[in-house]
Amino acid sequence: MSDSIVDIAKAARAASLVLSQATLEERNGALDAIAGALRANADSIMKANARDLAAASKANLAMPLVKRLKVDADKVDEIVTGVQSVRQQSDPLGETLKATELDEGLRLYRVSVPIGVIGVIFESRPDALVQIATLCLKSGNAALLKGGSEALETNRVLAKLILDATKGMPGIPEGWMHLMEAREEVRALLDLHDDVDLIIPRGGNDLVQYIMDNTKIVVMGHADGICHVYVDAAAELAKAMKVCVDAKVQYPAVCNAAETILVHRDVAVALLPELVAKLQSQGVEVRGDEGVRAVVSEDVVPATEADWATEYLDLIVSIRVVDGLDQAVDHINRYGSHHTDAILTEDATVANRFLRAVDSASVVHNASTRFADGFRYGLGAEVGISTNRLHSRGPVGLDGLVIYKYVLLGDGQVAGDYVGPSARPFLHRPLDSSWNPDR
Amino acid sequence: MSDSIVDIAKAARAASLVLSQATLEERNGALDAIAGALRANADSIMKANARDLAAASKANLAMPLVKRLKVDADKVDEIVTGVQSVRQQSDPLGETLKATELDEGLRLYRVSVPIGVIGVIFESRPDALVQIATLCLKSGNAALLKGGSEALETNRVLAKLILDATKGMPGIPEGWMHLMEAREEVRALLDLHDDVDLIIPRGGNDLVQYIMDNTKIVVMGHADGICHVYVDAAAELAKAMKVCVDAKVQYPAVCNAAETILVHRDVAVALLPELVAKLQSQGVEVRGDEGVRAVVSEDVVPATEADWATEYLDLIVSIRVVDGLDQAVDHINRYGSHHTDAILTEDATVANRFLRAVDSASVVHNASTRFADGFRYGLGAEVGISTNRLHSRGPVGLDGLVIYKYVLLGDGQVAGDYVGPSARPFLHRPLDSSWNPDR
Repeated sequence: MSDSIVDIAKAARAASLVLSQATLEERNGALDAIAGALRANADSIMKANARDLAAASKANLAMPLVKRLKVDADKVDEIVTGVQSVRQQSDPLGETLKATELDEGLRLYRVSVPIGVIGVIFESRPDALVQIATLCLKSGNAALLKGGSEALETNRVLAKLILDATKGMPGIPEGWMHLMEAREEVRALLDLHDDVDLIIPRGGNDLVQYIMDNTKIVVMGHADGICHVYVDAAAELAKAMKVCVDAKVQYPAVCNAAETILVHRDVAVALLPELVAKLQSQGVEVRGDEGVRAVVSEDVVPATEADWATEYLDLIVSIRVVDGLDQAVDHINRYGSHHTDAILTEDATVANRFLRAVDSASVVHNASTRFADGFRYGLGAEVGISTNRLHSRGPVGLDGLVIYKYVLLGDGQVAGDYVGPSARPFLHRPLDSSWNPDR
Repeated sequence: MSDSIVDIAKAARAASLVLSQATLEERNGALDAIAGALRANADSIMKANARDLAAASKANLAMPLVKRLKVDADKVDEIVTGVQSVRQQSDPLGETLKATELDEGLRLYRVSVPIGVIGVIFESRPDALVQIATLCLKSGNAALLKGGSEALETNRVLAKLILDATKGMPGIPEGWMHLMEAREEVRALLDLHDDVDLIIPRGGNDLVQYIMDNTKIVVMGHADGICHVYVDAAAELAKAMKVCVDAKVQYPAVCNAAETILVHRDVAVALLPELVAKLQSQGVEVRGDEGVRAVVSEDVVPATEADWATEYLDLIVSIRVVDGLDQAVDHINRYGSHHTDAILTEDATVANRFLRAVDSASVVHNASTRFADGFRYGLGAEVGISTNRLHSRGPVGLDGLVIYKYVLLGDGQVAGDYVGPSARPFLHRPLDSSWNPDR
């Protein structure tokens, strides 16, 4: 088994070299073919999905998982629309990011190119397979995919439709995508740092943490999403209330939902009774520190140290009263997961200190943490949300799937002419032009 | 020992949060203080270096290592000039890389920030310590440094001068830099992926490979530099000759020197006799495949499979005759290290196919591979040369030491208003403005 994934990864590397040369028209043509094939075969997708759903029901799979697993006619439409939206994105490849004239007739261009081979491991949602495969195709990357075993039948049909639709199309090599089915293949994949350049896990904390702990390949994603809202002394309380409730309640199962609310001591009495009541009325369990419970004790469970470090992903919130900005920032940098954190205040100076000092991928002033998402940020299709500190941070769009190469164009220049006592000087003049590979 | 490096790394993380807030004036002030301290203490640096040199002589250290180890008055001047040049660089931090109006009054900025904590492991050259420490300081990153044991005394003095000079300066926290002295500390450091964000190795292949094999932290650098020059059928032969000789001979011990020359069959007879003679006259040992030896056999050693995968770093070159562009590209993508590869041709179409298809950090048309270097590329101070496919590729300047955060500024917006049947639409309009944290 692990021998075969080694070969498959080598084939993916070879395919990635070919796919990196495909024109935008060729890549978009393949995306059109995929959208057409999925639409035309909605029935067989749903039939396969019915088999997965039957197995899930037999296995007593938890309801939220079943919900994410289900593919009905509307879901197929949504998946096809997703493919079309990836197709509409502007080309992430071949963009000149920087151009410099090193010397007369010696021009340097930094040009965007695909990363190479991307491994994606995802749970439940079969739509993730299509989304990631098409994002990789658009950005010229080969993709090695592994879905959850509960979606095996659906994933198998989706992968086959995608591969059949793109087979033999101009510019699209065999082996550009492969669906892994066995868990041992993932284990083997995590060792292939020569042929796999990036791993993107899409799934729960345990999956992501397992992958991060078991590979030397760069993993782009986030394990936790422990997000905070800090209500400052200078907050407008009605605004603060609205944002706190939205950040916690609007969709609690997602990574950018708030888990902890920090409240400045000076507004604790004015804010907390109404805020706690409002949250509780929406079914939220409130856990508070001493400061909170001194103001509101009814149905407020004492918060423990463990609460500050917990991502509930549920209708539970921890609330702490803090002495001011510095304590809030320290709390967030210490217990948070560097994902998304917000401040509510009408004091611009305090806001700016918070935005600078909080070490998170997204920092927010007077708005909900729930905006931290690729679609809402205007990135188009979303690859995921990264808490890495290299390459891509925060919501990642197509531009997270590309890197650059340097293209140097000369007319016989040699380095020896630029060293020693009679060295030619470099110009290092910025250029306005782009590299045109069809000149 | 490994306990203490754990604590030191945690202190570095804390320091990095403070240093990330230092203004450009504060960071430049610290760089001025460092330059001044190094200049004023040139004698004590040279005295410490003399002790290292004496130990090196006792230990019969190889001459090239001794040469790199030596710090005389000129070298101190050079080091100080290097610090001043880092100081002159424009601020890599706080730059607005992208700005989007999500909706009326809801603006999103992507702003450059430091990465965090950077571990740097380098050999021999004590000037590397100063260069890396000052690059980290300029970019707001904390630095954990480990030099070669042969430079222990010199490194110790340099690190102390830097720390003493910056101690208590406004904006500069204690613990922003630390010099490790024991090898076991490096071993322990490689495990600290929570508190160290990036490892930069500066040294020989063995060091870099060891580090890459023994850490899950991202390593930015290159192990090998197996660079190629391909002389196409449409090459201007005088130009090709000059570039081949420069790429091999001008400084053979560096990573961007050519190791293999590929020659199109159609110009083999016209080029090879003169090229081989020219290389041999400059002391280069030539190893050739059958095709080469069919044209020139005198003093041309047969090249073996191992030669194509060898970085000589010396006056040795392997030459292969190829049937054309495709074979050249295949050879380079197979045996090369994705570092820097050049084509010599007057045919623009062939050149562009090469530049697109060769999967290397730098691809070069009609110029020497030796230009692939941060200074020559106009990046200013150089962090290193990366063959990674994420974050930074090729010569890396200060911009390789930064990442970005998203800053979202609103006026109480909540996500709930943007979903459902009466959802507000997003504008997603590009903005011209930059985020001003002092508004």
